[in-house]
Amino acid sequence: MDAANRLMRRCDELNKCSEEPDCLTRRYGSDALRQAMRLVAGWMADAGLETRRDAAGNLIGRRSSGVAPAKILLLGSHLDSVRDGGKYDGPLGVLTAIAALEPFQDARLPFDVEVYAFADEEGLRFHTAYLGSRAVTGDLDAATLAVRDADGVTVAAAMRAFGGDPDNLDSAARDPATLLGYIEAHIEQGPVLERRNLPVGVVTEIIGQIKQTIVFTGVAGHGGTVPMAMRADALPAAAEYVLAVEKIGRASPGLVATVGKMSVAPGAANVIPGRVELSLDLRHADDAVWRAKARELEAIARDIALERGLTMEISPIMATPGITCDPTLTAVLESAIRTAGVEPLRLVSGAGHDAVPLSKRMPVAMLFVRCQDGVSHNPAESVDPADVTVVITVLTKTIWELAG
Amino acid sequence: MDAANRLMRRCDELNKCSEEPDCLTRRYGSDALRQAMRLVAGWMADAGLETRRDAAGNLIGRRSSGVAPAKILLLGSHLDSVRDGGKYDGPLGVLTAIAALEPFQDARLPFDVEVYAFADEEGLRFHTAYLGSRAVTGDLDAATLAVRDADGVTVAAAMRAFGGDPDNLDSAARDPATLLGYIEAHIEQGPVLERRNLPVGVVTEIIGQIKQTIVFTGVAGHGGTVPMAMRADALPAAAEYVLAVEKIGRASPGLVATVGKMSVAPGAANVIPGRVELSLDLRHADDAVWRAKARELEAIARDIALERGLTMEISPIMATPGITCDPTLTAVLESAIRTAGVEPLRLVSGAGHDAVPLSKRMPVAMLFVRCQDGVSHNPAESVDPADVTVVITVLTKTIWELAG
Repeated sequence: MDAANRLMRRCDELNKCSEEPDCLTRRYGSDALRQAMRLVAGWMADAGLETRRDAAGNLIGRRSSGVAPAKILLLGSHLDSVRDGGKYDGPLGVLTAIAALEPFQDARLPFDVEVYAFADEEGLRFHTAYLGSRAVTGDLDAATLAVRDADGVTVAAAMRAFGGDPDNLDSAARDPATLLGYIEAHIEQGPVLERRNLPVGVVTEIIGQIKQTIVFTGVAGHGGTVPMAMRADALPAAAEYVLAVEKIGRASPGLVATVGKMSVAPGAANVIPGRVELSLDLRHADDAVWRAKARELEAIARDIALERGLTMEISPIMATPGITCDPTLTAVLESAIRTAGVEPLRLVSGAGHDAVPLSKRMPVAMLFVRCQDGVSHNPAESVDPADVTVVITVLTKTIWELAG
Repeated sequence: MDAANRLMRRCDELNKCSEEPDCLTRRYGSDALRQAMRLVAGWMADAGLETRRDAAGNLIGRRSSGVAPAKILLLGSHLDSVRDGGKYDGPLGVLTAIAALEPFQDARLPFDVEVYAFADEEGLRFHTAYLGSRAVTGDLDAATLAVRDADGVTVAAAMRAFGGDPDNLDSAARDPATLLGYIEAHIEQGPVLERRNLPVGVVTEIIGQIKQTIVFTGVAGHGGTVPMAMRADALPAAAEYVLAVEKIGRASPGLVATVGKMSVAPGAANVIPGRVELSLDLRHADDAVWRAKARELEAIARDIALERGLTMEISPIMATPGITCDPTLTAVLESAIRTAGVEPLRLVSGAGHDAVPLSKRMPVAMLFVRCQDGVSHNPAESVDPADVTVVITVLTKTIWELAG
């Protein structure tokens, strides 16, 4: 079996590591993630990598150069998923990195290589993304460790239960002076490569974004006995807000605006909602645009609450400026793509990736892979094995070029 | 301690029987309900009642007349709750019935009395109300027994696990020929008695209602990469529907229209919602009005889906015509209220009660009790002990009058 087909099978195997029987959901700290890491650690070992877990729970497979002190090249992606997600978002980057190293089993490289399988990129459990890669840059602060999931479990407690050590996160942070940089392969999650009929492309920028939680609070009451005029229903307020988000998103070219989560409490058919909590996700290639639109939506939410006699609260989750990938590392990637016989199309990523927090401390570069219909975060996510072959080839060539 | 204060304490004790640590949630078949029934069974026994559980899991306390064959008077209410509910909605009717029988411990009555503590009125778990009282009228059909909760457990399986016997529900059904009728005391869940400064009132009608589940289905996708124009987001469609429900509710005098539940899938901040499921609850004293408005809202939902290129599905949950309480039994209740020195104000109930399904097979009458600010289905539910004394007195007098 060739490397790409074996990799596709491995993605199928990982797809079975899920918290839910009928779909893929793999949150930070879950048994499903533990199981996935166990599989990946086995494949890393098969490829001659020495495996370890860091204090944040990330899995790392290391290939030593044999020369000391050597610089370190980081490769990888994440193994957690969104709820009801697809099987390539994350795992593809981890598995192509492992596959790209196989040709070097008997070769000598002038640098060490470490493949990261990050434990949290999507942030499904704690709504605070990049727990895995932020540990690597030393950016997991006490406030983040104290964030609680829906069951009241803190990040720190989940980390400890997952075999990590929140009191010793320094040990997971890497010294930038020792690093060559980070290269990640990831599905595009958009339609551009498919339209251009290209298997891969190179990422020049990852756009910035803001995430917030908005809560409207009214008064719960009996749906059969409280007259319409006497209600302080939180749900119609939230509904007005959802439509305002959509309207602003549609009216601003290049802006994407999403309310992806909404929870209604108490949540019974015959009870007037007293509280609605929802999420806002705004992204634009120009940071000034999403910043301005976030302010505009904040004013709208305040007006809706005022108009309806409710209270409204906004909590920031994250606000990440856009980043530019490292020109030198990206040029190496482009050259490798060209050597593989593919035109190195430059893309802007609308999705966030582990490369975003990592870019604060090291050069980063990203390779995008065509995915069917641009669909992601969905069980319909699909990748062509022929494209996977190209990814592995490009990564292998990139490592050769870096080895000079 | 007088009867009302003891009863208030018992409501406090029952309030601790909950599935959730910080609020009252007691669904059909839960350990919390089992625990509540154990407490109530003890209090029934203390009051000289012989207790049993029927095949649906209802708890019954029986006081035999000693004469056979005697007719049977049914009293009671329910012990399940909504999510994050109040402590009087349901328990008050069960506990006042027990208290009202205490003065008869050494007396002779020409009829048997049975106090029902129904196991399901709110329908929180299965979204199918009145499981308890529908067993008493023999109206629990196979379709209802096959309904599944959020975890995929059927009504039948939950019933069995709760000590009931879904294969032997005939044994729970009562022969109408043996019954004098059913009398229930319940908090008003509205502001009328408080405004009129009356402790209790008598219910003449319980209004009809329709409940439906509406599902909008679009396509899930990545919130950072799918342009606004290419989205099939189910949430803005649901938002338009919520606002339409509110608008129609406000525009139709006497109509109450509620969307109390909404669940958004997949439900992550960075994922475009592919599916939104919500509930509709419509009520009006004139059955023709809620029927017409339900049809109107169905057309609106269809138009919203069509306009947005989504699919929409409506599933009926229940459609219950309004009922009229039994004039004879109600007259006895009114006379008892008058004897207690209170003006017998006639009320229409906007909330459904166990008396609704029971009215199909027997005469029913209802006593409403003032509750603070008309608030119910909320931890703020509050009742005055002095009013509880009036309820117990009125029920006791009613039994005396029926005994002739």
